[in-house]
Amino acid sequence: MDAEQLRENAHKMVDFIADYYKNLEDFPVLSQVKPGYLSELLPDSAPRQPESLQDILDDVQQKIIPGVTHWQSPNYFAYYPSNSSIAGFLGEMLSAGFNIVGFSWITSPAATELVVVVLDWVAKMLKLPNQFLSSGLGGGVIQGTASEAVLVALLAARDKILRRVGKEYLNKLIVYASDQAHSALQKACQIAGIYSENFRLLKAEQSSNYELVPEVLSEAISIDFSSGLIPFFLCATVGTTSSAAVDPLCALGKIAKASDMWFHVDAAYAGSACICPEFRHHLDGVEEADSFGMNAHKWLLTNFDCSLLWVKDRNALIQSLSTNPEFLKNKASQENAVVDFKDWQIPLGRRFRSLKLWMVLRMYGQENLQNYIRNHINLAKQFEQLVKSDSRFEVMAPRTFSLVCFRLVPPPNHQDNGYKLNYSLMDAINTSGKIFLSHTVLSGKFVLRLAVGAPLTEEKHVEAAWKVLQNHATTLLGNI
Amino acid sequence: MDAEQLRENAHKMVDFIADYYKNLEDFPVLSQVKPGYLSELLPDSAPRQPESLQDILDDVQQKIIPGVTHWQSPNYFAYYPSNSSIAGFLGEMLSAGFNIVGFSWITSPAATELVVVVLDWVAKMLKLPNQFLSSGLGGGVIQGTASEAVLVALLAARDKILRRVGKEYLNKLIVYASDQAHSALQKACQIAGIYSENFRLLKAEQSSNYELVPEVLSEAISIDFSSGLIPFFLCATVGTTSSAAVDPLCALGKIAKASDMWFHVDAAYAGSACICPEFRHHLDGVEEADSFGMNAHKWLLTNFDCSLLWVKDRNALIQSLSTNPEFLKNKASQENAVVDFKDWQIPLGRRFRSLKLWMVLRMYGQENLQNYIRNHINLAKQFEQLVKSDSRFEVMAPRTFSLVCFRLVPPPNHQDNGYKLNYSLMDAINTSGKIFLSHTVLSGKFVLRLAVGAPLTEEKHVEAAWKVLQNHATTLLGNI
Repeated sequence: MDAEQLRENAHKMVDFIADYYKNLEDFPVLSQVKPGYLSELLPDSAPRQPESLQDILDDVQQKIIPGVTHWQSPNYFAYYPSNSSIAGFLGEMLSAGFNIVGFSWITSPAATELVVVVLDWVAKMLKLPNQFLSSGLGGGVIQGTASEAVLVALLAARDKILRRVGKEYLNKLIVYASDQAHSALQKACQIAGIYSENFRLLKAEQSSNYELVPEVLSEAISIDFSSGLIPFFLCATVGTTSSAAVDPLCALGKIAKASDMWFHVDAAYAGSACICPEFRHHLDGVEEADSFGMNAHKWLLTNFDCSLLWVKDRNALIQSLSTNPEFLKNKASQENAVVDFKDWQIPLGRRFRSLKLWMVLRMYGQENLQNYIRNHINLAKQFEQLVKSDSRFEVMAPRTFSLVCFRLVPPPNHQDNGYKLNYSLMDAINTSGKIFLSHTVLSGKFVLRLAVGAPLTEEKHVEAAWKVLQNHATTLLGNI
Repeated sequence: MDAEQLRENAHKMVDFIADYYKNLEDFPVLSQVKPGYLSELLPDSAPRQPESLQDILDDVQQKIIPGVTHWQSPNYFAYYPSNSSIAGFLGEMLSAGFNIVGFSWITSPAATELVVVVLDWVAKMLKLPNQFLSSGLGGGVIQGTASEAVLVALLAARDKILRRVGKEYLNKLIVYASDQAHSALQKACQIAGIYSENFRLLKAEQSSNYELVPEVLSEAISIDFSSGLIPFFLCATVGTTSSAAVDPLCALGKIAKASDMWFHVDAAYAGSACICPEFRHHLDGVEEADSFGMNAHKWLLTNFDCSLLWVKDRNALIQSLSTNPEFLKNKASQENAVVDFKDWQIPLGRRFRSLKLWMVLRMYGQENLQNYIRNHINLAKQFEQLVKSDSRFEVMAPRTFSLVCFRLVPPPNHQDNGYKLNYSLMDAINTSGKIFLSHTVLSGKFVLRLAVGAPLTEEKHVEAAWKVLQNHATTLLGNI
């Protein structure tokens, strides 16, 4: 690690990456390689002797890039976005430069304290209740992913209730969410040892716009209580993965509170939109929550990974997740003068992720970030209008943020209710490499999802995506 | 994200980081700030309007760097190292540039397939048994940290045994390790719901060089079996955190196998050394293991995070950790033609971490990496000799790799057996900012740990560290 060699090589890498962005639109968005393609191109053991950076970059160009699905392409509309930005990228560089492992405060005080500062900043941007701020009993922490955020919340809740009722009652603990909740919750339950039959995915119907209906929850809880079971955890979603539905936090939260349950709110995708005053109402009721998560790495220009989690009672997390081995003891920690984020998360080690979020907030500023979100939502509105203007298509769920759920209407009496037709449409489009979108199933129907949110996406890309869809639809319908 | 703006700003960041490395030795290794220092220096809300990169870099210099503990300093000897290298740094840059989220193969085939290729490469460098290679029923995966590696192994083992005996027997499951095992195992047990009284930390004594004695394990297992409990998981360590002790894998593994237990080997730190033929014997017996982990981000020049985990039976992991929501379904996954690493780990999302490991292996080559390890081990040997040459000090555990455990011998009849004396020595040295080292307690004695392993550490730094130690010792002993 010679400083001048680093300088020389890293400048080369900057140019390589800038050129990648310059040429990004020329690549097929979805990688078109076949399974196993790479092992055929690479040797089967590591080289004995060093190779040059140029050789490696040539291989990246010729062998790696064809296998990359370009999440940063302006024509990427699949899943939810994973934003990269100049500020986020620079923050990642700086973090990799320091390369510290910030498990305890002492291992780099700035890495801990900057989390505290920027999570308070974002909490204020979202107008979260004061109990989520670091000044009280709660606070925020950067996790890797929303999966980890919901897992640590679930563990804190599990251990809190088990301390009260006795750990032998693990088999009685009941978790609730709508059937539109992210699969990360199911995984968290598997990890935490919640019995699979005690994981209640309550049906969210089209008639309620795929939101969890409070009465459905109440009823389920009351049945479980009367069966001697122990309801203890509710996860609501603001912006579900399938259709961006928003569960009614206020009503759900009151039910959770009345039953003494932990209430987690997962706003992984749509949380970012709530920095705009006109969308903030989607978080109404978050004051009832015990924990709240949103991913800055999805739609807030912060490179992956950067998942933000706030809790009202940090001690609940710490009681579940702390260890205190001799080799990590130090004066600051022993005196309880500092936060040690190792005790708020699954892994011990932590990267210096707050740098990139801090840089994003400063280099763009709150107003530009709000406008960035608004622009995507407007583009999604335009796309929704295009879908509505073509009678061959239909919109399948309300468009609340930047996700449009739609499908090609199957001809009358068409087999399988349009499943194969829409699958074929998606497959043909993704195989073309021109755009990439993904799907879900809503009320048994195969639905295409177009999520606007890649930083480079402009009006012309959304219009072009629509043309691609129309053309493929024309071909497909002509072949029926 | 304009390509030319990215280029311009990233070139500035490269120079900032290269300058940081140029000036690295001028900073105190251990940050000298006081708790809460940063919130006093930063505003309490995010700016409304954008700020310039130069303003931010000025703040990094003036406000962040004083709060950084410099893991890359040549005078960093604490804990275990966290290596940064040019290749590792470039790999992080490239990964941040693509900014993909590689949960499933389809989301960037190269991100999955490069893991398979490089984990096979490293498995061969370590001469791991063929069952750990991707060609059989096993394979390797990059986790974030060794904590996650041991957790997923534990979950796979837990669910495997519970499928056999019934999930109501969770309360009977017993985990074994030496009391020198890393606290990550305890945390994994907490997360997995293993009863704390069923977590056996078996005493590893000075007389056995802090290695777990097979007979001690056998005896514990047989007592537990006869109490109707279910031994199911054994974790052995190659290079413990306190003293780099190496558990006898072969004997322990045979005991585990005879009791039908999952055998995990944690070589987080010392695994890297085993790429050298002369140190490979420390892994003898790894053929008995069900899972094996080592951290490329510690001592193999790959920037944090990059923890490597191999398993013999990948299906055991997948059975514990997979979910299959509609919105992630895709042809390649449904046809079982590909690996989806989301099912081998806790989080859903994955960064493109294989790039940095691939670049490290190629830019340095196996021989240089071996020499890199040898050089650190030789420096540690030299330091050990220096300690031995000064009768005021004593070595407290065998030096096997690059860690030296030592202390100042307390004067006869000195209170607390030298605890406060050595604590004061460490505190004085760390407060000086000249070097940073950490401690442990072995057989009730406070022990200093000097771990050679920062990439920039040379002979002169080790000699200077020794001088610092001697000088402070002289002062301290003079004051007794």
